[in-house]
Amino acid sequence: MKQDLREKLSFIAQTLREIESYQHACRVLNFDEETICPERAMGAQGEVRAFLSNKAFKLTKEARFIESSEALFIRKDELDDPLDRILAEDLHRSFLKTKNVTPAMDHEFSLVYNDAFVDWLNAKQKSDFAIFSPSLKKVRDVELKKISLRESKLPDAYDNLLDDYERGMTTRDLDAIFSTCRGRLVPILHKIQNSKKRIRTDFLTRSVTDEQQREMSKYLLETMGFDFRRGAFTVSEHPFTEGLGRDDVRVTTHYYPNMFCSSIYSIIHEGGHALFEMYQPGDDWDHFINNDKTMGMHESVSRFYENRVGRSKAFIHLIYPSVKKIFSEAMRDVSENELYEAVNVVTPSLVRIEADELTYTFHIIIRYELEKMMVNDHAEISSLPELWAEKYEEYLGIRPQNDTEGVLQDIHWTSGFGYFTTYALGNMYNAMYYKTMSEEFDVEAAIAKGNFARINGWMKDRVWKNANRLTPKEWLRDITGDDFSVEPFLDYLEKKYTEIYEL
Amino acid sequence: MKQDLREKLSFIAQTLREIESYQHACRVLNFDEETICPERAMGAQGEVRAFLSNKAFKLTKEARFIESSEALFIRKDELDDPLDRILAEDLHRSFLKTKNVTPAMDHEFSLVYNDAFVDWLNAKQKSDFAIFSPSLKKVRDVELKKISLRESKLPDAYDNLLDDYERGMTTRDLDAIFSTCRGRLVPILHKIQNSKKRIRTDFLTRSVTDEQQREMSKYLLETMGFDFRRGAFTVSEHPFTEGLGRDDVRVTTHYYPNMFCSSIYSIIHEGGHALFEMYQPGDDWDHFINNDKTMGMHESVSRFYENRVGRSKAFIHLIYPSVKKIFSEAMRDVSENELYEAVNVVTPSLVRIEADELTYTFHIIIRYELEKMMVNDHAEISSLPELWAEKYEEYLGIRPQNDTEGVLQDIHWTSGFGYFTTYALGNMYNAMYYKTMSEEFDVEAAIAKGNFARINGWMKDRVWKNANRLTPKEWLRDITGDDFSVEPFLDYLEKKYTEIYEL
Repeated sequence: MKQDLREKLSFIAQTLREIESYQHACRVLNFDEETICPERAMGAQGEVRAFLSNKAFKLTKEARFIESSEALFIRKDELDDPLDRILAEDLHRSFLKTKNVTPAMDHEFSLVYNDAFVDWLNAKQKSDFAIFSPSLKKVRDVELKKISLRESKLPDAYDNLLDDYERGMTTRDLDAIFSTCRGRLVPILHKIQNSKKRIRTDFLTRSVTDEQQREMSKYLLETMGFDFRRGAFTVSEHPFTEGLGRDDVRVTTHYYPNMFCSSIYSIIHEGGHALFEMYQPGDDWDHFINNDKTMGMHESVSRFYENRVGRSKAFIHLIYPSVKKIFSEAMRDVSENELYEAVNVVTPSLVRIEADELTYTFHIIIRYELEKMMVNDHAEISSLPELWAEKYEEYLGIRPQNDTEGVLQDIHWTSGFGYFTTYALGNMYNAMYYKTMSEEFDVEAAIAKGNFARINGWMKDRVWKNANRLTPKEWLRDITGDDFSVEPFLDYLEKKYTEIYEL
Repeated sequence: MKQDLREKLSFIAQTLREIESYQHACRVLNFDEETICPERAMGAQGEVRAFLSNKAFKLTKEARFIESSEALFIRKDELDDPLDRILAEDLHRSFLKTKNVTPAMDHEFSLVYNDAFVDWLNAKQKSDFAIFSPSLKKVRDVELKKISLRESKLPDAYDNLLDDYERGMTTRDLDAIFSTCRGRLVPILHKIQNSKKRIRTDFLTRSVTDEQQREMSKYLLETMGFDFRRGAFTVSEHPFTEGLGRDDVRVTTHYYPNMFCSSIYSIIHEGGHALFEMYQPGDDWDHFINNDKTMGMHESVSRFYENRVGRSKAFIHLIYPSVKKIFSEAMRDVSENELYEAVNVVTPSLVRIEADELTYTFHIIIRYELEKMMVNDHAEISSLPELWAEKYEEYLGIRPQNDTEGVLQDIHWTSGFGYFTTYALGNMYNAMYYKTMSEEFDVEAAIAKGNFARINGWMKDRVWKNANRLTPKEWLRDITGDDFSVEPFLDYLEKKYTEIYEL
């Protein structure tokens, strides 16, 4: 590598370290806002976060940074380390995306997202979409403006947003995937609804305390292999995971007094995200390539732990004694098999994060269709609660009674569009690599024994290693040897529910 | 005011707003580190905080800022607003203090304090002073270096540090104050130790849950008038209060399974700090003069609520039903008077924050003498555990069995010296203004009725209003009409314990 390129690389690394410091601070502030920051202070703290984020943005707009990073991209074949070549591509991509965004615009956009978060929280608490509606309209306008400013953009507006979270994924792909899902899932759902099998669920709504749920959450994270020296957990309105730093992963959950399974599956889901964050290659941090190319991969991991592991017979066998001990009153007359069936009951319901594995995809399809309407068809934001209710009626035969259990349930739209589909893709990805994993060792046996070292080790070597380095398609082929297919996911669901519901 | 001065003031305000943004972020990061940040991530997060703090420092070193702020100071009589005149003096003072400190030095100092915090936490957990000792030595060296760099300094090295927390306070003053205290407190302590009165304390060590203590803490903060829309509370190793922003005050506490009174008095103490932060004049924020000139005032407030209010008969009468309800098992056979006497029992003990009002001052004198030895006499840091034990033997007749209950108990030395004496001064200040308050209304009656609007209102109008605006001496005279005297404090203690111990 020539001396002048080495110097450019070193300058870039130095600037990226400074940017990372600002971004680290922003992540801590954001975590604080979502977990403990008092209501009246949100606005001021959001402004501080916007200020710091803008400082980082300005560094990327400096002439020397642009000149150096573009030189790295043009001469990337001269770079010695393949990870630096990935960095050069990421930088170029990000340069094109923000080339026409000025620091003033960047700052203005941040403030729009901040206000949207504050208004959403307030609207959700009061169950009144009208409080959130003006902010959401501004978010939509910002998303459209950002698309129009891109130097290199895809013809379909919404495709640009999908591409941010899942590189290479388009509405054309997703329309086809979701159409196949509908074709196979609707008949299964109808069969379940007509089946004679009755699953006991009365105990799921029995009272439990926050303290019990906290103990259960801690036990589950420990069981999964979460490293408490490098992570922590607390509560928030909407459960989430934040990888704050190389040795710092935070997960949150939510405790409801009459839904103890909700916090169980929230913490397993977020714990899955956390394991990936904890065990991603240190080299990725050193080379600043931890900007995920595939959030579908991230969600495939969280939903692998939540569903493929967490709702399996083997896992219920493993945790049953602890569930019975911790929730002793609520679980007083519940057998292991009753618990297994109850956590797998299929019911069309209103809240995505509480949905069963079968109807979950419909929740995503609904959001996907609404986002397309908002982004591509410029749908009236104020009509969203009605559109939402109609979609739920169409896909699941039910309507929300209020905005909190309807259009306001998710935090995601406070920061833009395009994320939801990665959850559905995640289910499909993990169905593919679960097959591969099963061919290599007895996964159910490892789960039943609580041998998470074996499972996490496989995930680390095969799934997490390349998540920041390859595009989703390359990454999936690297693990499974196959191209993407939705069939393994649909086969898995069909088999599972045929057995449980004796179809 | 002339146009050029107006422009300078406006430039200063703009820079101070930017500095405040960095400092706000630092406070959030610090709060995070002390409450939830995982062990392995402390170092990295401390570095981010040092980076941001250094950005703020650099802004104060820019030529235009120095030129403008010095012009404001020289021409302060031309300033229209008296608060701007206070700002001009504060800026000049801070300019002199850091004139010879370069940004590189400032950054290096921050890292020393960060390491000290991480090592102290680790040392305290392992009860091993040797882990903290090298860091503490570095902190001492930094403090000495900072003193030597001051443009204008007091001849006695330690006086410079005292002056930072309590403007105008010197070792000469404190030696005299503490000598008077010893003269009157030792005889009272001996009388108590020889008295026949037996106070029941068996129930104080009964088991309670974290959940019960959390409920109690929330009840106490609500009772005191803490505004949860503008504040929050959580747990940390060492209880503290952080005024994060104008509408954001955080307090922390600590739950021990066998010391329910510890969390009661911790939360009342921190709640007191919080009330001051919440109700300080908004103008002080607008004029950037919220850099306390008197931490003794701050501690006078926290210890007013903790002791004068919290350990009074009237307050015990007010909270007794709730204490009995929340800690029902631990309080099963405890009368109101037994609770009152138990929270006022006098016992020479090892831990400052658990000490009674009488022996508390000795804990401060010990730290004051050790700090003088470290700063003025350059005492060997490694000999500190032994020196500590000897002082406890001398003043209280007891020796710590390990470093955690001895020299490692307090967080303060991770960030320098000079703070402790403000606690003792706080007790003396509030004794003075409690007298004034009592002349104006029946304080005990207000406490018994839970009429904190009355008490907090008086504190706001009389105590908090000028805390950032006047020097400690001016401020005390403004409230009480008198000069500082230690006698009201000593009279109060003598009267209280004579009654309780029937001396």
